[in-house]
Amino acid sequence: MHQYKLDAIVVLGDETPNMERDYITNRAKANGIVIQKRDEAPVMIVNGMEIDEAAKSGMKVFNWADFGLYEIRAKYKDDPIAGSRELYNNIFKHFGITGRVALYGTMAVSSFSSMMMHLLDNTMGIELVTGNNDVARLFQTAYETKSPEEIAALKEAGKLTSEVVRRTWEFISSHRAEGDAVGGRVVDKDGKPLTIGAVKRFIRMQEFELGLNDAEGCIFSQGRDSAMPHSTGEEDDVLQVGKTIVFDIFPTGANSGYYHDMTRTWCIGQAPPEVQTVYNDVFTIFKSVCGALKVGQDTSIYQRMTLDYFEGKGHPTQRVKPGTLDGYVHGLGHGIGLNVHEAPFFSEHSDNKLAPGNVITVEPGLYYPDKGFGVRVEDSVYIDQDGKVQILTDFPYDLVLPLKG
Amino acid sequence: MHQYKLDAIVVLGDETPNMERDYITNRAKANGIVIQKRDEAPVMIVNGMEIDEAAKSGMKVFNWADFGLYEIRAKYKDDPIAGSRELYNNIFKHFGITGRVALYGTMAVSSFSSMMMHLLDNTMGIELVTGNNDVARLFQTAYETKSPEEIAALKEAGKLTSEVVRRTWEFISSHRAEGDAVGGRVVDKDGKPLTIGAVKRFIRMQEFELGLNDAEGCIFSQGRDSAMPHSTGEEDDVLQVGKTIVFDIFPTGANSGYYHDMTRTWCIGQAPPEVQTVYNDVFTIFKSVCGALKVGQDTSIYQRMTLDYFEGKGHPTQRVKPGTLDGYVHGLGHGIGLNVHEAPFFSEHSDNKLAPGNVITVEPGLYYPDKGFGVRVEDSVYIDQDGKVQILTDFPYDLVLPLKG
Repeated sequence: MHQYKLDAIVVLGDETPNMERDYITNRAKANGIVIQKRDEAPVMIVNGMEIDEAAKSGMKVFNWADFGLYEIRAKYKDDPIAGSRELYNNIFKHFGITGRVALYGTMAVSSFSSMMMHLLDNTMGIELVTGNNDVARLFQTAYETKSPEEIAALKEAGKLTSEVVRRTWEFISSHRAEGDAVGGRVVDKDGKPLTIGAVKRFIRMQEFELGLNDAEGCIFSQGRDSAMPHSTGEEDDVLQVGKTIVFDIFPTGANSGYYHDMTRTWCIGQAPPEVQTVYNDVFTIFKSVCGALKVGQDTSIYQRMTLDYFEGKGHPTQRVKPGTLDGYVHGLGHGIGLNVHEAPFFSEHSDNKLAPGNVITVEPGLYYPDKGFGVRVEDSVYIDQDGKVQILTDFPYDLVLPLKG
Repeated sequence: MHQYKLDAIVVLGDETPNMERDYITNRAKANGIVIQKRDEAPVMIVNGMEIDEAAKSGMKVFNWADFGLYEIRAKYKDDPIAGSRELYNNIFKHFGITGRVALYGTMAVSSFSSMMMHLLDNTMGIELVTGNNDVARLFQTAYETKSPEEIAALKEAGKLTSEVVRRTWEFISSHRAEGDAVGGRVVDKDGKPLTIGAVKRFIRMQEFELGLNDAEGCIFSQGRDSAMPHSTGEEDDVLQVGKTIVFDIFPTGANSGYYHDMTRTWCIGQAPPEVQTVYNDVFTIFKSVCGALKVGQDTSIYQRMTLDYFEGKGHPTQRVKPGTLDGYVHGLGHGIGLNVHEAPFFSEHSDNKLAPGNVITVEPGLYYPDKGFGVRVEDSVYIDQDGKVQILTDFPYDLVLPLKG
């Protein structure tokens, strides 16, 4: 806050998840706002029903009723916006908040836009600090460097997620193919076709058993779908010999809330030569980037390194062909923590730098929708306090998944 | 939009979940914005990687690249806010959007406050419609009345959630107590104490098996915790004879995304007379309200009816004692659908009315933290097209859960 000359920050929002609130409250299960004056401890304001849960944050907790919520509701029942204005006025007065104030949190746009209008008219003696890229980055900067406790949680999530992928590999491998030709269907011992829906159900069961939470679901997509980086896969599709599967899994530790993020590309039974060639390009740059990660470097260097390499191999990229859906179409990676995407970011124009305590993904990929395949390889990587690179994902990189059923 | 004289709406946000976007896009798994001009079909703008998933909405889909995203990023790499301004300018120009525009969606406050500053300066020819309670209610109004497909999904979620509660009842009932006195620990046949953590794990497993999604977790809280309406319960606490348990479960159908919401209060083995008395008060008003629900009525009537009844029985309420944590401390209910809380709302000052197609919760409760117990009973209720009340929850209201192990 000193750095950005802020007098106070306010974390707003009824939304769950609300990462900035989760971070500052140690994931207390309470909706409410957090107020922090410069050089003072943050406090939380919640509904009376949530005081006990909020108190688990270790913070001093106030009740909205302390600031006249119920009287204001009754008084302003025909003009709730004026009521909200008076409530915040009471709160800011109580805590002596004036000067430069920045807002964070996650919120419904329709509620926030109203609230912002009455904060902007500036009779409360506050100056709303907005439109400032650095201020928006305050929490990102805090997220970026992990504490030993956070690293332990991230390592645990990595161990468990890798185990899910291992079990999924073995589950698929226990099946057989109807014929070895490309396109042959994968079936179980009774001849029942193995669908993506069934694999996803298997994956969720393993996550459940191992104590991982996967609210957003994973990507397990085959063929052309695998060439669309964010396609999640079609439930009814049957796994087929020689088709590529992109398996991108990003659960959180059920208790810790910290993410792991990893991707493998598999070809069942055999890999068509064209896929193998593209895979080799992706894997080569993946290994090169992992080997080159160095504290103090601009993250954009690694994105450029990847662009240079892929372009040299003749693949289209967003740099030479903006908007292309063929070739290399996304960023190289991102930080992970309580957010699945957080700083540092790896776009070409990012000004982030690598620092000790970063946990990032490295995930180059190449996509060819018209050829019906995509390839991505991703590990989560910790840059430790000595600047050493530790791979938190623990699973082999084989492309071909043999059927042994 | 005619009603609110809006020329266009824009649903913003990278956040997941984003209910307004989910509603309008039929839950397409794509982050992006939705733009709808009055009297025209809505369109979606997404990242190229997400075009296929976005197309599953049935809407016309555009790529950010169509509006110059990549060129803008390169041009404004040192001033991303100016870049964002130009991007939105291009988009509004392309679709011919001018006049009164309202914003919806869920978004990080720090990003949105910057965006709002450049939308407000009004060189784009748009008038940002904010601070207007009715406009904020546009989506709430749409949510409020359910289609037959939505009702089918809500009924299914009700059936499955009730089944989870039934299995949980039977699971606990299969245990025995160490002594019959109040406070005796609940143990399994080997004498192992039954903890809240173990019960919650059992619940999650049933949800998983039945195809329910429970990302936010349920409330299963005992004793004093049960007297804090939003306490989720302590994992390590052992279930005890005669303590009250508030079990509030609100999962979604894993495929449909529609919520069910129900609560039961249980006393294991026996109910102390004081708890039984309070339970009777809660159950009496619960039945009275369910019997009185009528199309066209103000929802606030039911909240007042509950306040009157509880106050008549000598219980404190927020009306007579604002901010109290004893007695009746929350609203009587709320709509449910794709949101766990949506219109109609049941506060004392709500101006919502009951309408055919509403699906609502009825959930009176009484809480006594200092006496170490709380009671809540909740069903989800459908007011059908003929105005008939259908209870979607299907589970008995017994207070005492006998141990048979």
